[in-house]
Amino acid sequence: METDYLSLTFAALADPTRRAILARLAMGESSVTEIARPFKISLPAITKHLKVLERSGLIARGREAQWRPCRLEAKPMKEAVDWLEHYRRHWEESFDRLDEYLKELQRTEKIKAKGKL
Amino acid sequence: METDYLSLTFAALADPTRRAILARLAMGESSVTEIARPFKISLPAITKHLKVLERSGLIARGREAQWRPCRLEAKPMKEAVDWLEHYRRHWEESFDRLDEYLKELQRTEKIKAKGKL
Repeated sequence: METDYLSLTFAALADPTRRAILARLAMGESSVTEIARPFKISLPAITKHLKVLERSGLIARGREAQWRPCRLEAKPMKEAVDWLEHYRRHWEESFDRLDEYLKELQRTEKIKAKGKL
Repeated sequence: METDYLSLTFAALADPTRRAILARLAMGESSVTEIARPFKISLPAITKHLKVLERSGLIARGREAQWRPCRLEAKPMKEAVDWLEHYRRHWEESFDRLDEYLKELQRTEKIKAKGKL
């Protein structure tokens, strides 16, 4: 069976620590120790998160034995956005409906206010 | 603690069956039986998927006791896209780099070909 990369990408993004790691790597490549510094979790926990990110293709690691810096690989995000963009019409419609509802509410309030005058 | 809706959304999207259900609901609201029809999995399994989608806010269910149709609620997808869009520069850069590499490859091949003439 073909690897379902889109599912791996979404699963990797479904965690605030992993998203924070990606935000850190967006500023430049970094060692595991540097990545771990701002977090209150153990180094093995960070390493686990990095493995999930690496498996999804969202990060890659250098090959130097001593210092294996992590870097962001944003290509899988493009696929995620491409998938989501098919639904743009739907979320824009729902915001239009909300807007329409709020306008209707304002109209009703104005009518009520006038009635009280 | 505030509910981390972005994580719930990404987790809900990290499954091909759930993404197929969303694609189905993009065509219009639908009953659970109708949703389940094209899938080779049990009705309880479908119900489980629907619960994950409902919890993330990606679908909503009608209140009629007998027929509780599901409908797509695409707003959480907008938040997901908004988050991903911060990284657009990165994936565009990586495609530019690939493009540059392929052009370089073509140039080298041409030089080699000329050398053979």
